[in-house]
Amino acid sequence: MTASAVNHQVLLTSRPHGIPQAEHFTIASAPIPDLAAGEILVRNQYLSVEPAMRGWVNAVGNYSDAVQIREVMRAFAAGEVIASRNPNYAVGDKVMGMLGWQTFSVTNGEALRRKVREDDLPLSLSLGVLGINGVTAYFALNEIGQPRPGDTVVVSTAAGAVGSAVGQLAKMAGCRTVGIAGGAVKVQTCLTEFGFDAAVDYKSPDFERELAAACPGGVDIYHDNTGGPITDAVLRHINKNARIIICGTASVASWDPWPIGPRVERHLLNKAARMQGFLVWDYEHRYEEAVARLAAWVRNGSLRYCEEIVEGIEQAPGAIADLYRGENNGKRLIRLS
Amino acid sequence: MTASAVNHQVLLTSRPHGIPQAEHFTIASAPIPDLAAGEILVRNQYLSVEPAMRGWVNAVGNYSDAVQIREVMRAFAAGEVIASRNPNYAVGDKVMGMLGWQTFSVTNGEALRRKVREDDLPLSLSLGVLGINGVTAYFALNEIGQPRPGDTVVVSTAAGAVGSAVGQLAKMAGCRTVGIAGGAVKVQTCLTEFGFDAAVDYKSPDFERELAAACPGGVDIYHDNTGGPITDAVLRHINKNARIIICGTASVASWDPWPIGPRVERHLLNKAARMQGFLVWDYEHRYEEAVARLAAWVRNGSLRYCEEIVEGIEQAPGAIADLYRGENNGKRLIRLS
Repeated sequence: MTASAVNHQVLLTSRPHGIPQAEHFTIASAPIPDLAAGEILVRNQYLSVEPAMRGWVNAVGNYSDAVQIREVMRAFAAGEVIASRNPNYAVGDKVMGMLGWQTFSVTNGEALRRKVREDDLPLSLSLGVLGINGVTAYFALNEIGQPRPGDTVVVSTAAGAVGSAVGQLAKMAGCRTVGIAGGAVKVQTCLTEFGFDAAVDYKSPDFERELAAACPGGVDIYHDNTGGPITDAVLRHINKNARIIICGTASVASWDPWPIGPRVERHLLNKAARMQGFLVWDYEHRYEEAVARLAAWVRNGSLRYCEEIVEGIEQAPGAIADLYRGENNGKRLIRLS
Repeated sequence: MTASAVNHQVLLTSRPHGIPQAEHFTIASAPIPDLAAGEILVRNQYLSVEPAMRGWVNAVGNYSDAVQIREVMRAFAAGEVIASRNPNYAVGDKVMGMLGWQTFSVTNGEALRRKVREDDLPLSLSLGVLGINGVTAYFALNEIGQPRPGDTVVVSTAAGAVGSAVGQLAKMAGCRTVGIAGGAVKVQTCLTEFGFDAAVDYKSPDFERELAAACPGGVDIYHDNTGGPITDAVLRHINKNARIIICGTASVASWDPWPIGPRVERHLLNKAARMQGFLVWDYEHRYEEAVARLAAWVRNGSLRYCEEIVEGIEQAPGAIADLYRGENNGKRLIRLS
């Protein structure tokens, strides 16, 4: 450690209603404390940006406690152990976990999700296709979707970090895959990069008709990352015994109060369909199982991914709003030099 | 057969929008045809009245084809074989099935659900607690609800034929049971007749508060027979990993077009909860398993039921509307003399 090694931290400084913008955050400097027994110091190399972060900063209606005002923004990050007073971690270990939007993290290990042992693959993957996004795709599709060969699987935000993985895993399971994405570029990405059998632009004035045309045999599994009117449109095409995985609600700006929409009760009844919320935290105990499978597919080229990496912590405050503008391609990461 | 044995049939003669009323039906007489090879003649003794019949006559938005105009109203009935040209059925056999609202039914056996072999129990039970209602309760609770000891199970239309059975089966499974019913009499029936641990009147101006007070530990399973605002109220109290069984939508008068209500996507996500439609037809292959269990519980007194039996086929046309007025207590049946 040198005297110049201050910690740059992105603090939540006001409470957003809806999508957090750059002005809700402040970048502050803090000294790096001496390590207590059991603690390690991690130099973060990549900070993650997730759609779910919107929920983490909202005061109500989420699955976890909200980030507090003046708290370092909760975030996944990956980096290298540069000092250790914990026998389980050695200097040089690569780790990922809930290390926050900051350049250095001190933790007793509780914040860590795992040691990253895939030394032949970029560390950044541990935050995307081999991280929360890939693991989400793996368990959401397999545990809730339960794909069978021949099923039609529709995926919203299909060009995104989770959606693109869901589509490819479903294809490997013998399913027909239909992606929903925003704009011609992302639709093309779904087809050429991620191998969807069909892809539909939800911004098209003919979206409903195009969706129907893309699903002539109906929909058996819908992996939903959006909620809202896109979900309503897909629901009109579900088959008997359909499985609807509620994984994200990116298209709905605020859930306080609950917005209104078409009631689903009768439709779920008539189709004996299942709609189920998915939280990846419920599968933490099986994380390594998923990473091992996903890494093997990445290595043999059957699981593709897309990263969009920007440089410097000053990119962090506006990054969530960027995601929700749909301007990114693939997994959004912030690299720290 | 005597010359006087004409068949009295309740025909659907106009298409209801919403709840079918007496004026949508006409009672007509028809001759009883000679039996072809393979056919049997059943003298119906009990005709069933189900909330689901509303869906069967509506033109859109159901799980089965609509009853056609001038067709005999689709209905479960139970009776006795009085003539047979089918080696599988003998004169004197008791049978139940989709025999229609009529005094006599001719079938090659396809309309039959089963032979009724519980000779020690009233034949009428084969249409209720040992019929579609009890079987629905059994599979909906066990297959979708998956009750565990200590779970809080909320049931809507809790004094009804399905709901009362769900509550008792859940109680036998070690759950805490909370019934929702309309009016003080039905609430009392839930408590004294069907052993619910608590019961709440959805017509009470304090319904939301009373529901919350009845579920201090939240809701693990909701067996939903109503949909609509009652369901919205229960959803606000679900626990992590809750199971919501969509079994009926009695409180919503029409699903054409789909009515609007609070969107559930985010809530299901935050709770990793499951909302699933239940169709008893999907469990036909296991019908006898359920009846055997239910009959044993009826015999030993641990499963109680309530029947409301009216006399004569002329009661049939108005019977569905009566159900939806909530005026009945228990399973509504029509006895034919």
